[in-house]
Amino acid sequence: MPDSHSADLFAVTTGALPSSRKVHVGGVLHPEIRVAMREIDLTPGCGEAPLPVYDPSGPYTDPAAAIDIRKGLPALRQSWILARGDVEAYDGRPVRPEDNGLDAGQGLTVPEFDRAGRRPLKARDGLAVSQLAYARAGLITPEMEYVAIRENLGRRQAAGLAADGESFGAAIPDFVTPEFVRDEIARGRAIIPANINHPEAEPMIIGRNFLVKINANIGNSIISSSVAEEVDKLVWGIRWGADTVMDLSTGKNIHTIREWIIRNAPVPIGTVPIYQALEKVGGIAEELTWEIFRDTLIEQAEQGVDYFTIHAGLRLAHVPLTARRVTGIVSRGGSIMAKWCLAHHRENFLYEHFEDICQIMRAYDIAFSLGDGLRPGSNADANDAAQFAELETLGELTKIAWRYDAQTIIEGPGHVPMHKIKLNMDKQLAACGEAPFYTLGPLTTDIAPGYDHITSAIGAAMIGWYGTAMLCYVTPKEHLGLPDRDDVKVGVVSYKIAAHAADLAKGHPAARLRDDALSRARFEFRWKDQFNLSLDPDTAQKFHDLTMPAEGAKLAHFCSMCGPKFCAMKISQEVRDEAVKGMAEKSAEFRAAGSEIYLHSAGAAES
Amino acid sequence: MPDSHSADLFAVTTGALPSSRKVHVGGVLHPEIRVAMREIDLTPGCGEAPLPVYDPSGPYTDPAAAIDIRKGLPALRQSWILARGDVEAYDGRPVRPEDNGLDAGQGLTVPEFDRAGRRPLKARDGLAVSQLAYARAGLITPEMEYVAIRENLGRRQAAGLAADGESFGAAIPDFVTPEFVRDEIARGRAIIPANINHPEAEPMIIGRNFLVKINANIGNSIISSSVAEEVDKLVWGIRWGADTVMDLSTGKNIHTIREWIIRNAPVPIGTVPIYQALEKVGGIAEELTWEIFRDTLIEQAEQGVDYFTIHAGLRLAHVPLTARRVTGIVSRGGSIMAKWCLAHHRENFLYEHFEDICQIMRAYDIAFSLGDGLRPGSNADANDAAQFAELETLGELTKIAWRYDAQTIIEGPGHVPMHKIKLNMDKQLAACGEAPFYTLGPLTTDIAPGYDHITSAIGAAMIGWYGTAMLCYVTPKEHLGLPDRDDVKVGVVSYKIAAHAADLAKGHPAARLRDDALSRARFEFRWKDQFNLSLDPDTAQKFHDLTMPAEGAKLAHFCSMCGPKFCAMKISQEVRDEAVKGMAEKSAEFRAAGSEIYLHSAGAAES
Repeated sequence: MPDSHSADLFAVTTGALPSSRKVHVGGVLHPEIRVAMREIDLTPGCGEAPLPVYDPSGPYTDPAAAIDIRKGLPALRQSWILARGDVEAYDGRPVRPEDNGLDAGQGLTVPEFDRAGRRPLKARDGLAVSQLAYARAGLITPEMEYVAIRENLGRRQAAGLAADGESFGAAIPDFVTPEFVRDEIARGRAIIPANINHPEAEPMIIGRNFLVKINANIGNSIISSSVAEEVDKLVWGIRWGADTVMDLSTGKNIHTIREWIIRNAPVPIGTVPIYQALEKVGGIAEELTWEIFRDTLIEQAEQGVDYFTIHAGLRLAHVPLTARRVTGIVSRGGSIMAKWCLAHHRENFLYEHFEDICQIMRAYDIAFSLGDGLRPGSNADANDAAQFAELETLGELTKIAWRYDAQTIIEGPGHVPMHKIKLNMDKQLAACGEAPFYTLGPLTTDIAPGYDHITSAIGAAMIGWYGTAMLCYVTPKEHLGLPDRDDVKVGVVSYKIAAHAADLAKGHPAARLRDDALSRARFEFRWKDQFNLSLDPDTAQKFHDLTMPAEGAKLAHFCSMCGPKFCAMKISQEVRDEAVKGMAEKSAEFRAAGSEIYLHSAGAAES
Repeated sequence: MPDSHSADLFAVTTGALPSSRKVHVGGVLHPEIRVAMREIDLTPGCGEAPLPVYDPSGPYTDPAAAIDIRKGLPALRQSWILARGDVEAYDGRPVRPEDNGLDAGQGLTVPEFDRAGRRPLKARDGLAVSQLAYARAGLITPEMEYVAIRENLGRRQAAGLAADGESFGAAIPDFVTPEFVRDEIARGRAIIPANINHPEAEPMIIGRNFLVKINANIGNSIISSSVAEEVDKLVWGIRWGADTVMDLSTGKNIHTIREWIIRNAPVPIGTVPIYQALEKVGGIAEELTWEIFRDTLIEQAEQGVDYFTIHAGLRLAHVPLTARRVTGIVSRGGSIMAKWCLAHHRENFLYEHFEDICQIMRAYDIAFSLGDGLRPGSNADANDAAQFAELETLGELTKIAWRYDAQTIIEGPGHVPMHKIKLNMDKQLAACGEAPFYTLGPLTTDIAPGYDHITSAIGAAMIGWYGTAMLCYVTPKEHLGLPDRDDVKVGVVSYKIAAHAADLAKGHPAARLRDDALSRARFEFRWKDQFNLSLDPDTAQKFHDLTMPAEGAKLAHFCSMCGPKFCAMKISQEVRDEAVKGMAEKSAEFRAAGSEIYLHSAGAAES
């Protein structure tokens, strides 16, 4: 069991998942790297090797790691960054009260994170310090080798499995080499979000030819009792599998809470800087200026945000296209920019200053997540002129970003019925030169508020299969309220399901290993292994124990749904034993043995 | 709020869903029919008409209905059945202790249902009394007109909506006429499960050119405190949208509990008779005989079971094909029959006696649900030789059943990764002459026990889109334990989502009406309407109230996720107001009005 919330003001959730160990795999090109993964140990004597699984949870699930959120995580990448010799430390922008949503004279209500004199880094001499720039220069960075090892996970074991899957034109390799990673990044088909000011993050890759990733959103509570609570939202999300986390906080203390989050984040952190910029102008969209926005980008760049959602594709001319929509503009950033454009009757300043933004992105290696401000908010508005006009603009902007060596992904919808999903993927690939697609769901129907993790997991699995590189989760509270801890977990697990279903269907060489291991455990009645191999061992075991609480039941050779007398798997094992011996000559013997499948015990059946 | 469990031993869940009324639409060809549907009333003055929705919940949600489960539901179809003049009442088979899983001398532990002298009906003179026989004879029965009206639901309103969808060769009409229903039944492409001994059921249709239906499984508890609890599982399942219910009970009292369920079921009831037959031979599969099985069919036919799962497609020669599977045979019926075949080294007696079974089916109008005893129990086993060999046999059997005028649907998998789902549908259509497909999920990954309602809702939505006519639900407890009341609800709602997503994608003319009405309510901040239009109004409202509990918040013109200052929909409405007036000339005016989007109030953002 994890150590959960304690009275300690700085405690977060730690502890290994059941029967799991943190392992580290060393680099070859870069011997100093140690790639973290999780291995699940199975029942001794069952003849199965430990199963390695992808693990974004960082040191929090490593009992050997000393966690103190006041110090932050170790700066894993710092030496790699400095070794490249293309960055310099500088004093950085002073933190101002408005960065924390405070009026002059108001004080923080959370403690400051002690940066211990640490100064931000930026590129020297206008250089691009992005993974894209390095890849184009032919370099294989430690980050690239790290993700190659990380993605390979089990592919050696899978060598015997027949290739299987429909990848819709993706180019998934049998084995991921550092060179492959470099080439995919160089052509813009993948990114490693890796702000040079966020050295704590473990490198991960987002691209169509890699495992499908998921993002979880977190945001500040109205009243936080502690910064640990804010950090723990991150820790809790990555514990269950979130690959990146977006901090969508607004209001008081946000600069400071963001500092706590980034310093303790082993995954890339994304933000939507326009939210903070809007706070700085008192929430009045039409008072936003390029200067205030730019200043916010620098502020967050220096803290270490790894990717920015930038709504530069929503142009003045697109806004009237939304007038007849059922649900108008549902992106917050989109509606803010639309309002600004209308108020000034001017082109979106993010579009006009896009090259200025590129200069910032390349100087810190922040990735663009080009926002879809005009994504449909209902099935009725899916794939309409407004949505696709913006997508074309995002394609233009992608090419500009690439000219500046800025890594780029593209955000996508939203609410889309199943038959209209594939067109989104096809158009995005064509318009944006195969830059990675990053979608919210999509939700395949509008009629189930309270269950939108499910309406959207359907669409997410499908668009992931078609080629989307990262799926932004949706929790059960979507459209209704703020997700709590349970909602975050359900959202993350639902999206791990969608992403994994996509990996299986695309034919990722090793994706099936976990399914097969779990299925064997199921067929062999290794209950504990079945729980431990699952995405959420705690819930699996809890559900089992509700029906069969006795510890001995976990050794039972029948299934808890059917009870002993109707267990298909039990009968099937007997059948198999007979079938493989040859049938005709065994029939008499079988009957003579009086093989019993009926046990007089209380068994209730369902399904 | 529904009246839920009371101390009354015979009370079940009753009461209308929020803001909903039961309405009845009269027939034209058969003026005596009154087709039940639900209308959801929206906020007075909002300009929207009440929205009709499909409603399988029967009289339980009609406050005007007097519910007494001791009397059972009114025999809605009795006069229609008798008017055809082709059935006769007879004494029926006496109920024996073994029918209730009792040894001689043991007594029931539940009260008997008082049949009040009612005798079973069967066909006269070897006639076929099935809807298929009538359809082939060119008759339009009251049942056919009933389902035509029921399916049309809103299609008149939808006349203005552009046709939209990809139906993969289905032939979905703009408007469902009784003649269309008849023709679809006549060619075997749809069924109306309608045992002449279950006149309480409201007719419903299962077929690829109609709305996608869902089935919920229920089963007896080990210890029931009352028959009402057993009946309430049915009532609870249909309250949330189950179109049919399978009673998978085993053990004690099952004959009697089945009687209580059928007499109180406004939806078709399915069973797997081999389960009860196995009980009658003490659970020893190899002691099953055709005579015992046949007797069980008659027993259940006389009670009024509407469809039987019959595992006649699993042949002796198929069994060795499962020997190398990861999860062998996972169907309970399949494993029982495989064991019987091996023990005797004989062909499956259900296959050999299939024409005898057809004679029973046609005499009571029980539909075949041809069981897929060899469905894959893991992604690894999907689409293998065993599975598809059985499917071919099911195709043969379908043609035999049709020769006997027996209505037929085909069961399908199971566990199938996304890229292998469509082949299942294509092969089933080809092998089984377009007889309706009825699938369990399929689960698109094996790694999420505890969340298999989600792993399977993904597959169910897709296969529903491709043409599956009915989806068998999976609850969160699948593989782990017995579903409780909450699990049943979550399973049903998850499958309503899958079925509705499929209807939208197929392009059912009126499917979008509910999505659009809910989306308009969402955009216009009609919170109560948003809740009431959703699949689960109680949960939607509960989730909203957790964040914004005040009653006044349901009038708020901002969304509970973002709070007032970041509400995209609020801003978007302002944008729309401006955009439609023309932009250039309005810019100055807009600024002058000082339109505020920033309200100083506690708002926290997430998403």
